[in-house]
Amino acid sequence: MQWIGFPDERFVVNGLGWWDETKPVLRRLPERMQSVVPPAVWDLAQSPSAGRIRFATDATELAIHVRYPSLRFMTNMPRVGQLGIDLWVDGKYWRPVYPLDETSDYTGTFFEGLPAERREVCMYLGLYAPVEVVAIGMNEGASIEPPAPFALEKPIVYYGTSITQGGCASRAGMAYQAEVGRALNLDYINLGFSGNGKGEKELAEACAEIDACCYVMDFCQNNRTAAELQEVYAPFLQTIRHRRPDTPIFCITTIFSTAEVWNPASEHEKMREVIRRVVEDRVAAGDSKISLVEGYDLLGPDDRLGLVDATHPNDIGFMGMARSLTPVLRDVLGL
Amino acid sequence: MQWIGFPDERFVVNGLGWWDETKPVLRRLPERMQSVVPPAVWDLAQSPSAGRIRFATDATELAIHVRYPSLRFMTNMPRVGQLGIDLWVDGKYWRPVYPLDETSDYTGTFFEGLPAERREVCMYLGLYAPVEVVAIGMNEGASIEPPAPFALEKPIVYYGTSITQGGCASRAGMAYQAEVGRALNLDYINLGFSGNGKGEKELAEACAEIDACCYVMDFCQNNRTAAELQEVYAPFLQTIRHRRPDTPIFCITTIFSTAEVWNPASEHEKMREVIRRVVEDRVAAGDSKISLVEGYDLLGPDDRLGLVDATHPNDIGFMGMARSLTPVLRDVLGL
Repeated sequence: MQWIGFPDERFVVNGLGWWDETKPVLRRLPERMQSVVPPAVWDLAQSPSAGRIRFATDATELAIHVRYPSLRFMTNMPRVGQLGIDLWVDGKYWRPVYPLDETSDYTGTFFEGLPAERREVCMYLGLYAPVEVVAIGMNEGASIEPPAPFALEKPIVYYGTSITQGGCASRAGMAYQAEVGRALNLDYINLGFSGNGKGEKELAEACAEIDACCYVMDFCQNNRTAAELQEVYAPFLQTIRHRRPDTPIFCITTIFSTAEVWNPASEHEKMREVIRRVVEDRVAAGDSKISLVEGYDLLGPDDRLGLVDATHPNDIGFMGMARSLTPVLRDVLGL
Repeated sequence: MQWIGFPDERFVVNGLGWWDETKPVLRRLPERMQSVVPPAVWDLAQSPSAGRIRFATDATELAIHVRYPSLRFMTNMPRVGQLGIDLWVDGKYWRPVYPLDETSDYTGTFFEGLPAERREVCMYLGLYAPVEVVAIGMNEGASIEPPAPFALEKPIVYYGTSITQGGCASRAGMAYQAEVGRALNLDYINLGFSGNGKGEKELAEACAEIDACCYVMDFCQNNRTAAELQEVYAPFLQTIRHRRPDTPIFCITTIFSTAEVWNPASEHEKMREVIRRVVEDRVAAGDSKISLVEGYDLLGPDDRLGLVDATHPNDIGFMGMARSLTPVLRDVLGL
């Protein structure tokens, strides 16, 4: 086994919008934004949240050495999805590796003893845990080649809530953006911030910094009320549109939550109305590159098996969301 | 709110084969078996693993007070599924409640402020955590009536591994037996023991004690080798058949594991062969009430999105297993 220190330019990193600026740190926002975005957002940005390491190789053995600076347990998703390194090969799921105890330094073997055949490797990094990749291990003499190109050079940029960040996929490669990415062969950047997808102007500016093939706005329910959402939603879109006049923007109204059944005070439907009106207004004002995506079309009242904890999708829910969102993006992007 | 101490005969407990003997303890084996079964099995039997509390009520408020004597974290399933109390109403998922920290004493509210309408309540107990139900809370004057009857009086009895115990459903109500149970309106008893579904004679005798509508044998991979499985499989069936000559038995070969792709030493296919031969032999010897169920028909190589960690199903996998197993059971049971 040879251990190749990370980063190494032969290992392509996808999904981190400012990787050139942040490396070697696997972080979702650049350091200069620390003083600009809310502290909770900055904290959540320390998790790579489905950032990916990609390359092609004929390795017969593959392993990874990682370090977790601050291991915390979550209650509503398995530790595998929270912090596991999820290996997909040639577009198919193989396995995750993850520490079984509260160690901060961990080495996991993905496979060994396989025939030396060229394989496209994609490692999805954990959704809710800062991680340092120390090195990638391979048998001596294994090749490392560039991964297959994406269908478009520019990534999808998602902005949103815990659902956007990937809660509660059982593995990082099961979050809905990962499934859409595989289906359309597109790169994507995840700017979902658990409990903090509130639509601040600074986050709109962060989104707009990235030259995206499209933006997916997946926020509303982290605002406490429909009135609060009303204050931020149109300005958020305007900030992106100002810098990116021609980039398609998809606005998702929140998916179904069982709280809409058992909590009479739920404002989810009012929030959907806010988004619908803002999109209508923009279309009426001539914005031809904005689309409404109804959350119920992604995960509606008949899809409640797709929820973990009233609010967050499980793998069934994310699979359904991805399968409904994929054709919408495919059409608009002309894929 | 009135708190009704548990147990109370108005709250029906399902899924615990010896409840009359074990109550008030929510345990899957009776105390007299402690000295008979392996210590690991006895330990795992302390978890109710989808035992259920059922009743009908017009409550406008519903809550539960539980105690966890030994909270442990799992890595490959969310704590919700591990220990959450999963509420289903009129056969539909509503929500789980579960402690957010390492408390042993926990009170969770399922709902409040709802209209006083008759609802069929089913609370699935956690899959991998011993729990004591202290009391159930309801508004003063709420009715408590018997739950709707099952289609058959006798339960399905499942014996098997961690997969059988429910690993890695995101909620207790998402394990495959729960889904089969809802689809066929049947009671079921879960004798899955994580890592310990090895097929000892004592466990066959435990299964056979329960007068089941059918038995589902879902074990093989907890044996280290196909040769070890060979030693136990036929005797296990014979023990059940001796006591229950006419009860249908379904024998599942193990579902797909991605280890079959990346671990050349996997003996899974050899183990499947063992089961196939044993079932063939029994059929040839005149047993007309035994059926083979191929694991690949429940979750096969094309269904790998349905796995969490190479081996255990996620919610997608369990949903697929349930949907494939349901018609097999329906046909044989004449439902």
